[in-house]
Amino acid sequence: MESVTIQFDKESSIPMYIQLSKHIGMLIKEGKYNENEKLPTIRKLAASINVNNVTVVNAYKNLERKGYIKSMVGSGYYVTYKEHDVITTSEEEDDSFLEYDNINLMSKGQLKVCKNTINFASANPDPSQFPVEDFKRAINEVLDRDKGLAFGYQESKGYKPLRSSFTQFLKKYMDVEVAPEDLQIVSGAQQGIDIISKALINPEDYVITENPTYTGALSVFKGRGANIIGVDVNIRGINLSDLERKIVTYNPKLIYVMTKFQNPTTISYSQDTLEKLLDLANKYNVYIVEDDSLSGLNYMQEDNKINLKALDKNNKVIYVKSFSKLLMPGLRIGFIAYPPEMQEQIIKAKHSTDISSSGLIQRAMQLYLDNGNLEKHVEFMKKIFKKKYDCMNTELKALRKYGVNFIAPRGGLHFWIKLPKGVNALELYSRCSQRDVLIVPCNIFYVNPLGAANNTIRLSFAAVDEEGIIKGLNILKKELIYLLKCDNEYSEVHEEATLSPMI
Amino acid sequence: MESVTIQFDKESSIPMYIQLSKHIGMLIKEGKYNENEKLPTIRKLAASINVNNVTVVNAYKNLERKGYIKSMVGSGYYVTYKEHDVITTSEEEDDSFLEYDNINLMSKGQLKVCKNTINFASANPDPSQFPVEDFKRAINEVLDRDKGLAFGYQESKGYKPLRSSFTQFLKKYMDVEVAPEDLQIVSGAQQGIDIISKALINPEDYVITENPTYTGALSVFKGRGANIIGVDVNIRGINLSDLERKIVTYNPKLIYVMTKFQNPTTISYSQDTLEKLLDLANKYNVYIVEDDSLSGLNYMQEDNKINLKALDKNNKVIYVKSFSKLLMPGLRIGFIAYPPEMQEQIIKAKHSTDISSSGLIQRAMQLYLDNGNLEKHVEFMKKIFKKKYDCMNTELKALRKYGVNFIAPRGGLHFWIKLPKGVNALELYSRCSQRDVLIVPCNIFYVNPLGAANNTIRLSFAAVDEEGIIKGLNILKKELIYLLKCDNEYSEVHEEATLSPMI
Repeated sequence: MESVTIQFDKESSIPMYIQLSKHIGMLIKEGKYNENEKLPTIRKLAASINVNNVTVVNAYKNLERKGYIKSMVGSGYYVTYKEHDVITTSEEEDDSFLEYDNINLMSKGQLKVCKNTINFASANPDPSQFPVEDFKRAINEVLDRDKGLAFGYQESKGYKPLRSSFTQFLKKYMDVEVAPEDLQIVSGAQQGIDIISKALINPEDYVITENPTYTGALSVFKGRGANIIGVDVNIRGINLSDLERKIVTYNPKLIYVMTKFQNPTTISYSQDTLEKLLDLANKYNVYIVEDDSLSGLNYMQEDNKINLKALDKNNKVIYVKSFSKLLMPGLRIGFIAYPPEMQEQIIKAKHSTDISSSGLIQRAMQLYLDNGNLEKHVEFMKKIFKKKYDCMNTELKALRKYGVNFIAPRGGLHFWIKLPKGVNALELYSRCSQRDVLIVPCNIFYVNPLGAANNTIRLSFAAVDEEGIIKGLNILKKELIYLLKCDNEYSEVHEEATLSPMI
Repeated sequence: MESVTIQFDKESSIPMYIQLSKHIGMLIKEGKYNENEKLPTIRKLAASINVNNVTVVNAYKNLERKGYIKSMVGSGYYVTYKEHDVITTSEEEDDSFLEYDNINLMSKGQLKVCKNTINFASANPDPSQFPVEDFKRAINEVLDRDKGLAFGYQESKGYKPLRSSFTQFLKKYMDVEVAPEDLQIVSGAQQGIDIISKALINPEDYVITENPTYTGALSVFKGRGANIIGVDVNIRGINLSDLERKIVTYNPKLIYVMTKFQNPTTISYSQDTLEKLLDLANKYNVYIVEDDSLSGLNYMQEDNKINLKALDKNNKVIYVKSFSKLLMPGLRIGFIAYPPEMQEQIIKAKHSTDISSSGLIQRAMQLYLDNGNLEKHVEFMKKIFKKKYDCMNTELKALRKYGVNFIAPRGGLHFWIKLPKGVNALELYSRCSQRDVLIVPCNIFYVNPLGAANNTIRLSFAAVDEEGIIKGLNILKKELIYLLKCDNEYSEVHEEATLSPMI
């Protein structure tokens, strides 16, 4: 048997445990280990390659999930690998994990979710609650009315009556006044961010984001070759003094924020922060992208519902609206409300991206909106979400005695949890996923995931019913208590864990 | 009145006549000319700023279309401008014209097509011939079967049964064997090109294209910051010796080609050229993107139907399939068949572009394909297209006596026409459009539109019926004869044209 020697790439966004897992996987594939051969113990390997025990534990678990190795009770890990046809497919899983939210991974089919999985990682509503019948009616009405035109090329900017409906929606719910000419229909908010980036960002430009932030946005900005600068968020929103300092230093092309129920921190900006943020945008003449997928899902009656865009007198805000959470993610329809001077760049970017969004879905969406169906549906979903929100809130409060810390959000679909000292989020994630409970460790949301503390997780209640919330959080509690016990003398306990993983 | 002095930007992709039109428009806007003031005569202005008379004619016509100036019979051009609210909107039209095919411009609503327009610029089939009822049935079947799941997030790679159906389609019609794992569903071929570019092209990379080529591809490559190198096409396909020389010189990231009924030249590659092109790809280890929207629309029974992808033994070809012409452009569903090693990059690029394509349309497309509907529809459309093809072919042959030159294509939806010496394509376009006949002047398809000869046009018969073809080509003939007459003593005749534009 060969000893493991590995050169870690510390600059890489791929965490060490994945790098190690890949490296060992490669050795096994190349036949450097024989079938049924015992792997080095965790402690021994960790010492020999100078990493934390946790790194080796996670690497081994990763290899076990992929069927390369197997843990034998009381004995350690053994090679099981014979021949995999599609090693690249399975290799890919964990790499992508670092790039995107779990939510998105779900959609890629790369996190295996079985029937009994309690999925706190997904922020997607239960498809059985989608308004399929209403939408089906709208689609059929469009097809009977417009026939072939519903399948012809559409204006790149979007179907005009839908743009008009969206301006009315903005006016009614958000007190935002925008002309239909200044709206661009997009195939979902992800495409909105991509198009804005194509229009505004050149390689080596600077972009400022909240830190942590939505991984899908980070991925787009990186893809454009931008340098991303993160700014912390606090209870009132983005840290304004740090932001100003960084605007002055980096002269960014844009600032990307989520002002309502920020992802993943669940923070909503105070009105004061919104106003001061706009002052900075005006002072330094920089655009702000306001990504809004959750406003409307407020659970507190008295809440301030003002968005940044509503306060934007000088056309500094590019507002991106998603309906994936409010309505259905598979629609792939959202919009951008942009400053008028940006029209040409935005249309060009949309056009070279995919020419236009589906005309059929745009037309059906317009009927659906104009019939008042969206309003009805959001009210319906809010009642469901509020119950689940209350349930999760109650359960999580009961975990405070173990050192778990969180601020109950005022709406949205997530809770953001700070774990007690000594409990590693990646490890909690790994243990929970083995018991079919999925959570999101929040280091992936940071501009620099490797530099981020591994002590926060995000739990979503969108895809889990109340029974599941109680059951899932009970499992999480047990794993948490187990990891708390392991703390201080982690490595010894952990080696024994293969003997009796349950407590 | 001020005299016009203008500094042309000869590096710009904006043609001189647009630059001039913008400049004069600005002078008018700024009040440098008074209302009803007479503009310099065409000859005088052309001489004073040292440009061709045609440039001034086109600039004036452009301003006239926008309502800035007006031609008075027998007298010249006069300022009519008072105050325009939306000067940028109208300004934009002509800029964009340089960026995209007319086809695409249509979809942007930026070329005004009225009811009587004879549209040889659009390559889109008549929406009244779309198989709306069959597709409606498929959609309803999907909604009844899958309910909310049809509106949930889909796997980024695409709905698996649809990927399987596409592999069968490839096998059956093109003798291409690809695993469903190596297919990526995209929202149309334009998105396919965008995603491939995101996966492979970094700023300053080199990309080789046929010259002329599809403007939507040029736009994407430019958007990624690539340097584009054009290679001529001849009757057998891309010029192989020039291609090899340029591969050696520039070491390109990819070569972008259309091997069947190339756009705009309508050339189909000979099998020998296909094979030698692959040899070059293998020899120099460079990927080829084969963009295929028209194969299947062959009008010659005996034709070789082999695509490049079918000959690709070493995974050098990335095949992009559009169904916009074969089926319906508004579906926004196509696919990429890529070399297996590219999987991770392609999925990441798709994911950060728009997460996934519409699940509903993907599912409906799968049913539609599996029911054999596509095959039926293509046969139906081929019959229609063939009649129109024959009609246009006959009419165009009759123009040969005026010096018009073309090679009848073996399929597809276009004719590519070389104009007689002395007839400028932009001017013919301009004259025809004033008589409600739209054609595409082909300089826009060149990597360097300003350096391209203005002597070719593209005529599509997809959107025009036989009556329209005859009527439209009759108008084109008259304008052609007029321009031929003007040749040699162009400028004098043209000044008088304001007196009696018709012959």
